[in-house]
Amino acid sequence: MFNFILESESSTTKARTGRFTTCHGTVKTPVFMPVGTLASVKSLTPEELREAGAKIILGNTYHLYLRPGCDIINLFSGIHKFMHWDGPILTDSGGFQVFSLAKLAKITEQGVQFQSYIDGSKHMLTPEAAVNAQICFNSDIIMCLDQCIKYPANLKEAKEALDLTSRWAKRCKKVWEETTSKKNALFGIVQGGMYPELRKASAENIAETGFSGYAVGGLSVGEPKNVMIDIASATIPMFPVLKPRYIMGVGTPEDIVELVSLGADMFDCVLPTRNARNGQLFTRFGKINILNARFKNNTGPIDNQCSCYTCRNYSTAYLRHLITTKELLAYRLNTIHNIYYYTNLMKNIRHAISTDRFDAFKKDFYEQRRQV
Amino acid sequence: MFNFILESESSTTKARTGRFTTCHGTVKTPVFMPVGTLASVKSLTPEELREAGAKIILGNTYHLYLRPGCDIINLFSGIHKFMHWDGPILTDSGGFQVFSLAKLAKITEQGVQFQSYIDGSKHMLTPEAAVNAQICFNSDIIMCLDQCIKYPANLKEAKEALDLTSRWAKRCKKVWEETTSKKNALFGIVQGGMYPELRKASAENIAETGFSGYAVGGLSVGEPKNVMIDIASATIPMFPVLKPRYIMGVGTPEDIVELVSLGADMFDCVLPTRNARNGQLFTRFGKINILNARFKNNTGPIDNQCSCYTCRNYSTAYLRHLITTKELLAYRLNTIHNIYYYTNLMKNIRHAISTDRFDAFKKDFYEQRRQV
Repeated sequence: MFNFILESESSTTKARTGRFTTCHGTVKTPVFMPVGTLASVKSLTPEELREAGAKIILGNTYHLYLRPGCDIINLFSGIHKFMHWDGPILTDSGGFQVFSLAKLAKITEQGVQFQSYIDGSKHMLTPEAAVNAQICFNSDIIMCLDQCIKYPANLKEAKEALDLTSRWAKRCKKVWEETTSKKNALFGIVQGGMYPELRKASAENIAETGFSGYAVGGLSVGEPKNVMIDIASATIPMFPVLKPRYIMGVGTPEDIVELVSLGADMFDCVLPTRNARNGQLFTRFGKINILNARFKNNTGPIDNQCSCYTCRNYSTAYLRHLITTKELLAYRLNTIHNIYYYTNLMKNIRHAISTDRFDAFKKDFYEQRRQV
Repeated sequence: MFNFILESESSTTKARTGRFTTCHGTVKTPVFMPVGTLASVKSLTPEELREAGAKIILGNTYHLYLRPGCDIINLFSGIHKFMHWDGPILTDSGGFQVFSLAKLAKITEQGVQFQSYIDGSKHMLTPEAAVNAQICFNSDIIMCLDQCIKYPANLKEAKEALDLTSRWAKRCKKVWEETTSKKNALFGIVQGGMYPELRKASAENIAETGFSGYAVGGLSVGEPKNVMIDIASATIPMFPVLKPRYIMGVGTPEDIVELVSLGADMFDCVLPTRNARNGQLFTRFGKINILNARFKNNTGPIDNQCSCYTCRNYSTAYLRHLITTKELLAYRLNTIHNIYYYTNLMKNIRHAISTDRFDAFKKDFYEQRRQV
């Protein structure tokens, strides 16, 4: 049965550490979850993910529902055995993808009607269908179906979407209660656009329904950074203290440090994996692009203080050669480094909070970035 | 110093086992060498190559000369450290690629003038330059520059190309003798098109010059299978018995079994790696294409008798899902399987020869393929 324990709190910020337990193991928070959209964190094996420090990964319901489909995943009793990852898996509900990828999505009270971006086939994603798909996936953390809106959205649109999201959340909880033994967690999602008062109302509403954890959806959709922080800042305090708080789809290392300061516990983002495939690597001094000619003769690792497999065994010049020549190994070695950077950042964050030195950690984090 | 020991011979065929020693380790023959064109066997790390049974890999002089260039590889004292592979490396001379990939290649007595396929820059590849590049790469086995011809070619073209190849071979040997301590091997290459009498003349000529090992070039260029076997059959017996014999760019598992019967010791081919990326996997029952819909629900491994990492951990259904969705992990898992298939085939071949049961092995090899 899913459970979350709060372990320490920063005395100067709202940052906190804890751990949650799932059927597939325990995860320390704050945690970053690498994205494995189609039951694969692009280019990596589960063994490499573990070596790079990943403890929990994310899958996308929308993509997995279309390919390979629930019937195939059911043959393996879930995603874990299908993809050979025995750690915890969180799946999003498909809400975000239906709006961003599907053709002709039509929203009704019942759910979202959409056409597959692959073959044009018609589908109906209801709150019940979204939860049932995730039950079939045996996701350790199931997300409620939410209605995502474009940015910017007016107050009326934002209000209507949050109200629908609240009604859908109740339906999600009902099907989860009726068809599972509740051993897997169900998280509620807050919407409300960039309106703090709507966010508060949404958070209260979702908290009242009651979930295993709480997520902030609809951020990192194009809004300015300070707006994102303001919205998170207005929303997080509305959540029950003793439940995990997940900021969906965020973000840069800087975003994560700031959101941890506000009391956030969980993050996911395609940034480390997608950037890796473009040659953009994270270091304690900031982001570098190894396609840059200045790395051509660099016989040293990307970061001489990094202990990842890539930095231990390969030079920056070799990594540049691989990405320049579009060698497949480039994507792997870069992804390993970037995931390690993120998991190591989270480890350092947890250590700083638990020793109540998170302020000093933040100062140091930003100072190193100014040294480039 | 390179050295080759003949260890056993089949009593019913010309098949033989042996081993050669290089500065980077000893290799049992017959051996298959996976192709790592640009200092990377596409999608795999050196650790995975080893686990898949690879003992020696091949690099391409033409590609490495253009990118990253000798100056960069020189910073690492060779390819081994550059790419983090500490086993033996054989590099081809660039002759084949100059003719197949370069623009406006112009052959003179001096060498080949060509334009880079990447940026149109002009280069001159002489026998001396080809050997010097491979010395800079610290290749354990250096190949002479040869003149490759198109298929079909008439007798005059084939004769001229083989004569030039013989003259270039002498120049290659001279620069190798003068500028190295000869610790790395230099192999001569036989040409002569599809004319057995030219092949014999070429082999005699090259053997007279004297090399650490002998290669048959210009096969697998579009000729019918029986012609390829006839040419190899006419050429191999002309080589000194106590030197390794390498059939360049060949081939299918069936080709390899046949050429081993004729006394060949070394092979390289893009087939296992390239096919892997297209979803074509080798099994003891023959080749399968996992994009085929019949594998959609297959929860078993590709081959339940295969011990590779892929077959130990992943189902055929998952592999099909990965390649269908173009996930990068597909290329890796398929490549691991195919390389393991080839290295395991060679292991079985060596065992069969050394126990003098190669005939029985061949019979079994073909019978399993008829069971599909």
